[in-house]
Amino acid sequence: MKGLSPDRLLPTEPKALEIARRLYESVRDLPIISPHGHTDPQWYAENEAFPDPAQLFVIPDHYVLRMLVSQGIDLTELGVQRRDGGLTETDSRKVWQTFAENFHLFRATPSRMWLEHAFQEVFGWTKRLTAETAEEAYDHIAERLVQPDFKPRALFERFNIEVIATTESPLDDLKWHRAIRECDWRGRVVTAYRPDPVVDPEFEGFQQNIEHFGEITGEDTFSWQGYLNAHLARRAYFKSFGATSSDHGHPTARTENLSSAKAQELFQKALKGTCTVDEAEAFRGHMLTEMARMSLDDGLVLQIHPGSHRNHSNPVMDTFGRDKGFDIPTRTDYVKALKPLLDAYGLEKDLSIILFTLDETSYSRELAPLAGAYPTLKLGPAWWFHDSAEGMRRFREMTTETAGFYNTVGFNDDTRAFCSIPARHDVARRVDCAYLASLVTSGRLNEDEAYEVAYDLTYRLAKQAYRL
Amino acid sequence: MKGLSPDRLLPTEPKALEIARRLYESVRDLPIISPHGHTDPQWYAENEAFPDPAQLFVIPDHYVLRMLVSQGIDLTELGVQRRDGGLTETDSRKVWQTFAENFHLFRATPSRMWLEHAFQEVFGWTKRLTAETAEEAYDHIAERLVQPDFKPRALFERFNIEVIATTESPLDDLKWHRAIRECDWRGRVVTAYRPDPVVDPEFEGFQQNIEHFGEITGEDTFSWQGYLNAHLARRAYFKSFGATSSDHGHPTARTENLSSAKAQELFQKALKGTCTVDEAEAFRGHMLTEMARMSLDDGLVLQIHPGSHRNHSNPVMDTFGRDKGFDIPTRTDYVKALKPLLDAYGLEKDLSIILFTLDETSYSRELAPLAGAYPTLKLGPAWWFHDSAEGMRRFREMTTETAGFYNTVGFNDDTRAFCSIPARHDVARRVDCAYLASLVTSGRLNEDEAYEVAYDLTYRLAKQAYRL
Amino acid sequence: MKGLSPDRLLPTEPKALEIARRLYESVRDLPIISPHGHTDPQWYAENEAFPDPAQLFVIPDHYVLRMLVSQGIDLTELGVQRRDGGLTETDSRKVWQTFAENFHLFRATPSRMWLEHAFQEVFGWTKRLTAETAEEAYDHIAERLVQPDFKPRALFERFNIEVIATTESPLDDLKWHRAIRECDWRGRVVTAYRPDPVVDPEFEGFQQNIEHFGEITGEDTFSWQGYLNAHLARRAYFKSFGATSSDHGHPTARTENLSSAKAQELFQKALKGTCTVDEAEAFRGHMLTEMARMSLDDGLVLQIHPGSHRNHSNPVMDTFGRDKGFDIPTRTDYVKALKPLLDAYGLEKDLSIILFTLDETSYSRELAPLAGAYPTLKLGPAWWFHDSAEGMRRFREMTTETAGFYNTVGFNDDTRAFCSIPARHDVARRVDCAYLASLVTSGRLNEDEAYEVAYDLTYRLAKQAYRL
Repeated sequence: MKGLSPDRLLPTEPKALEIARRLYESVRDLPIISPHGHTDPQWYAENEAFPDPAQLFVIPDHYVLRMLVSQGIDLTELGVQRRDGGLTETDSRKVWQTFAENFHLFRATPSRMWLEHAFQEVFGWTKRLTAETAEEAYDHIAERLVQPDFKPRALFERFNIEVIATTESPLDDLKWHRAIRECDWRGRVVTAYRPDPVVDPEFEGFQQNIEHFGEITGEDTFSWQGYLNAHLARRAYFKSFGATSSDHGHPTARTENLSSAKAQELFQKALKGTCTVDEAEAFRGHMLTEMARMSLDDGLVLQIHPGSHRNHSNPVMDTFGRDKGFDIPTRTDYVKALKPLLDAYGLEKDLSIILFTLDETSYSRELAPLAGAYPTLKLGPAWWFHDSAEGMRRFREMTTETAGFYNTVGFNDDTRAFCSIPARHDVARRVDCAYLASLVTSGRLNEDEAYEVAYDLTYRLAKQAYRL
Repeated sequence: MKGLSPDRLLPTEPKALEIARRLYESVRDLPIISPHGHTDPQWYAENEAFPDPAQLFVIPDHYVLRMLVSQGIDLTELGVQRRDGGLTETDSRKVWQTFAENFHLFRATPSRMWLEHAFQEVFGWTKRLTAETAEEAYDHIAERLVQPDFKPRALFERFNIEVIATTESPLDDLKWHRAIRECDWRGRVVTAYRPDPVVDPEFEGFQQNIEHFGEITGEDTFSWQGYLNAHLARRAYFKSFGATSSDHGHPTARTENLSSAKAQELFQKALKGTCTVDEAEAFRGHMLTEMARMSLDDGLVLQIHPGSHRNHSNPVMDTFGRDKGFDIPTRTDYVKALKPLLDAYGLEKDLSIILFTLDETSYSRELAPLAGAYPTLKLGPAWWFHDSAEGMRRFREMTTETAGFYNTVGFNDDTRAFCSIPARHDVARRVDCAYLASLVTSGRLNEDEAYEVAYDLTYRLAKQAYRL
Repeated sequence: MKGLSPDRLLPTEPKALEIARRLYESVRDLPIISPHGHTDPQWYAENEAFPDPAQLFVIPDHYVLRMLVSQGIDLTELGVQRRDGGLTETDSRKVWQTFAENFHLFRATPSRMWLEHAFQEVFGWTKRLTAETAEEAYDHIAERLVQPDFKPRALFERFNIEVIATTESPLDDLKWHRAIRECDWRGRVVTAYRPDPVVDPEFEGFQQNIEHFGEITGEDTFSWQGYLNAHLARRAYFKSFGATSSDHGHPTARTENLSSAKAQELFQKALKGTCTVDEAEAFRGHMLTEMARMSLDDGLVLQIHPGSHRNHSNPVMDTFGRDKGFDIPTRTDYVKALKPLLDAYGLEKDLSIILFTLDETSYSRELAPLAGAYPTLKLGPAWWFHDSAEGMRRFREMTTETAGFYNTVGFNDDTRAFCSIPARHDVARRVDCAYLASLVTSGRLNEDEAYEVAYDLTYRLAKQAYRL
C-alpha cells in the first residue's frame, strides 16, 4: 500500500473529478455530527486507553468477525468469549495475526477502507496489513494506544466530533452519561432512548424488565397507564442527558393504532408471556404509535430500523450470544405497515420520523414516495450492509428523484467502532460529492447549488433532523 | 441559472458524449407520439387560454404538491380545494410565491427539469426560480398565457405532437372529443377506454355506474351478457373517437379466467356490494381476460398499470380527495398473477398487452422474461415515479438484455401537465441516446444500428405498439 | 459488422480502460474451468460433427427461441418438434433464414454477443447476420462443421477447456461418460449428480423413477433407508465418473430438517402420490438437508438453484414440452428458507454449498450477508437471465462489499450451447476486469491486488470451490 488515494471514491472522468474535488474540499473538514451510533459512553467518561489493536479493531467488530468466520475461522480463534466459559484465544497478538493473514478477504469491502483509513489517518501506519507486516502493525498501533493523544477524549477532539449520540435502554441508569456531564471535559455526548427491552414481548426477560422499569420510575408498570407513565418519565430522564431521539429496532415496520382496551389486553398477555407471534408484533407496532404520541409532546425524533433477522444461526447464538455477525436482512414492507401510524400522525409537522431499511428494493418503490409525501417522514442514510460506497450511491440514485435531498437526514455512522468514525463520514462525504458532481456534469444541478447541497448533506440536515 | 445545458443527461466521457450527441441530434426533432396520457380534451376543444402560472404549474400537479407537502406546507396554502368547502388559498400569486420559495426542494428531481424546460423552452424565461424572482417569473408567464401562441392548440402544434391520447371512463359522453372532431382544427387527439368505474366492484358508486352504463348503451347491464355487451358497445364508441387502447389501473396484476357461471356469480355479488376483498380482486382480474377476449375482435391494445396503493393517507383523502400525491407503489407480482390470462391468450399474435410497473424489482426478474417469451406482451416505459433519468436508465439496463428493444414500446408521458410534455419526451430521448451511446462505446452495438434503435424508441415503436 | 471490438465491455474512460486492458490481458488466455453446465457427453464420446448451423445455433437454444417467439414467430417455424408429431419446419436453411431475418431482435442482448463471438472466433465469419447474408453465413459455417477441426473434441481443445462438468440424473447409466473414460481422448469431462427426478414428488413419473432407482442400485427404494442408501450408492457411482458436485433445481430455496419419522411419512405419501403441494415442498426441502449430510461424508459440493417457475405457459408445454424459453423467475426468499439446513450444517467447514438466484433483489439483502457469515455458503455467479454484462456488473456491485470476492466461486457457463462457452467465459473475464479497474481507479483496490483477484475470479476460485 502506498497509502490511501487522495481521490478515492471520486469520479475518474476528469471533468467530473474536478467538480467532485472542489465539492469535497468544501465539506471535508466540517465537524462530524454523529446523531445515531453505538459507541460506549464509558470510554468518554473514564478516558482510559484502548487495550490493544486486536481488542480495538477485531474482537468487537461484527463486520470483521463475520467475514473471517465465513472463510472457516472459528470465533474462538478470534478471541470471542464463549457463553459457557469454554476455551477461547486470549493472546491478542495471535488474534491479530489471524486477522492480518486473512486481510485480503476484505478487498473491496467498506471494512477494508475504514480499517486502512484508521491505520493511516489515526495511527500513521501506511503499509499494507499482511501476515508479514502483522507484528510491525501491532507494535506500531499498540505503542500509540498508550499515549495520551490516543485516549478516547483526545481522539474525539481530533476526529472533530461536534456531537455524538450513544444508545441506551430505558433500564440503563446513564451513569456514564452522568459522569461525562459532571467532569470538566466539554465533548458533547448525548444518549438516545432505545426501549426494545420494555416494548418487545419477545425480548429476553421482558417481564423482569417491566418490573425493573417500574422500580426505577416508581410507576406501577404492570398497569397500562403506569407503563406509559414510566416511558414518559424515562424519556424525560433521557432528554435531561441530551437525548433528542428514540430508536426502534423491530423485526418489521408494522405499526398499529389500537384502541386503549385492545392495547391493554395485549400488554397483559405480554406480561403473562402468552402473546402469539402476531400479537407480539401487534404490540410492538402499537408502541411505535404510542411513542409517536409521546414525541408530539416531548419532541424526541422517532427512528425506525426494521428488517433484520437477528442472530440467524442458532448454534452461534447458543455458543457465543448476540451480535456476532449473523444478523441477516429480510424483505420489508413499509406501505401497509406504516399506514396505521401515518393515518394517526403522518401529517403532524412537529413530529419527525426517520426511516431506515436493509431492503434496498424499498428505496424507490416505497420509502422515497412515502417520504416525498408525508411531512413527518424522513429517510435515514444507507444503513449497515449498505453503509458503503455502492450502497450510498444506490441510495442517492434511487431516492433523490422522488424524495429530493431535503427528505433525507445526512449521514450517521451507526457504529461501535470508534476509530472508524472519521473514515465512515469521509466515505459518505466523498460518495455524496461524487454523486453531486455527476448531477452537475449531466446538467441536472448547477454547481453553486451543489455546494449548498453538499454542506446540507454533510452537516446541516443531520443537525436539523435530529434537533441537535 | 444560465439555462439548460445543451448536453444534459448525455454522458460526460468525451467519446461517449460525441456518439450520444449524434444520436440525440437524429431524434431530437421527431414528432411526439403520446399514446397514453391524461391531458384534458376540453383544452383542445375550447382552446381557451390557461388561467395563470399557479393554476398551470402548481395546483393540478401532484408531483409538485406532494413535495411541498412533504416539507410541511399545507395543501390549502397551495390552493387545493377542500371537499368541505373550507378555506383555501385563492390568490394564485401567493401560491406561486410559496412554490418559488421552496423550489430548491426539487433539486435533482424530474419535476425540476420539466419545470425549467417549460419555463425556458415554452415561455422563454431562463432565470432560476427563487423567492426573489418569483414575481418576475409569474408576470413573465402570465403575460404570455393570454397570447394566442400560448393557447392549447398553438402549443400542441408547437410541441410537434403528431397524436395524443387522453383517457376517459366508459361513462363519459366524449363530448369534448366530439367537439374536437367537429371543429376545423386538425390536431389528432384520441381517447382511450378506461373502464375502472364499471369493472371494479370497489369503485365509488359501482352500482350506480353500472346502471348508468346500461342507460347510455341501452343494454341490461344487470345481466352478465348485457354487461359484456355494454362494454362492446362502448369500446366501439370509443374506437369511433380514435381509441386504439384500453387502460386498467388495478391494485395488483391479478388475472383470472373464470367459468361463465363463476364470473356471473361474482358479478351479481358485485352488484349487491357483497364481494369480499378477494372476490372483488378476482372479478377485476377476470375482467382483464374478458377485455383481452374483446381486444381479439376489436383490436384495442390492453394496458395494465398495477401496483399503486391509491390515496394512502386517509386524512388527505377525506379532506382533499383523490390524486393529491399520496399514491404509494407496492410490491407487485406478475408471474403467478398473469398466468390465467396468458394461458388463455398469451400466444395470440393479434393481441397486444402492454405492462407497466411501479416495482422496479420486476424488470429483470419477471417482466423482461415474460415479455421476452410471450408474443402478446410488451413492456411500457419506466412509469410515474420512475419517469426520470435514473428510472429510465434502470429500465433499459434491467430489461434490454432479456427482452431486447423490440419488446418495449417507446416512451409515453402519462401526464396531465401539458407544458411538461416536450420536456418529458426530451428527457426520454436523451436518456435513451445516452444508453445507446454506452452500448456503442462498450462494443455491444454498432453505431449504425444505434441510429435505427434511437428512431424506433423515439417514434416507430410507440406508433406500432399502440396501432396509431 | 467490422468484427468484435477488442475493448468490448471494458470501460470507456481512458485511465480505467488502460488498467482494465492490462488486467484482461493477464487472464484472457487462462484455461476454461466449466464446473456447471449442460453440454451433452455423447458429443465428446462419439465426436461426430454437429449437423448444421440451425441445429447448432437455433433449434436447441431456448434463449434464441424465446426471443423469436416473443415477436410472433411460431416454434414450428423454428424447427422445434411438436409432441403430437404435427408438422414442423424440417429445412434447416429455412429455419436459419428466419433467424437471420430477425437477428436485429437480439441487439444488446448477451445472445447477440455470444453468437457473434462464435461466428467470428470459432468459424471465422465476421459479417453481420441479416436476411441478405443468411445464406452465405449458413454455407460458411456448414462447410466448416464437417471438417475435423470443428468436431466436438477438437473444439473442446481449441476452447482451452481444462475441465467441464455435465449434469445427469441418478437414473442415467453414464454410458457416454464411460465411453469418454474408455477412449484414448484425454479431455476432462465429469458428471454432476442432479437428483430432481427422484427427490421431487411432483416430478413426472416420480413413483416409476423411484422403482428404477431401486433396480439400478439393488436397494429397496420404497423403504426410507433403502432410498437413502440408493442415493449414497449413486453418488459414489457418479463420483467414480469425476463428479464433485450435486445440483438441485427446486422451485424455492426451502429447506427442512425433519425427524426421521416425519421424513419417512412424507416419503410414503410421495410414493403414493398423495403429498399436498406444501408436503412436496417440505420433502424436497428435507432432501437438501439429507444431501448435505451425505456431502459431509463424500465431499460432493451442494448446488442450490431455486426460483424458476418452469414451463410457465401451459399451451407451450402441452404442444412442445419443457425448456422452450418459458421458464420465468420468481421472487425468492433465502433467509427463512435456508435456516433449517444452516442450523444443522451451516458452520461445517468441510461442507460447501453454492447458492444461485434469479432474484437479484436477494444479492445485497440476503445472499451476500448469508455467504459473508456462514462458512458453508458461497455465491454462484450471476445466473441465466443475469449471465450478461449488466447482470454480472450488478452481481459484483451488490455482493462484493458484504461478501467480498472470496465467498464467490468464479464463473460458470451453465450452458448446452457448446460454441458459446468461450464467449461466455470471455464476457465474464471482461466484466470482472472492468469492475476491478473501476475499483482501482476509485482507490478501493491496489492494482497489484487486482491482478490476483482477476486470476482468482477467472480460474482459481472455480477449481477450489468445486474441488476440481
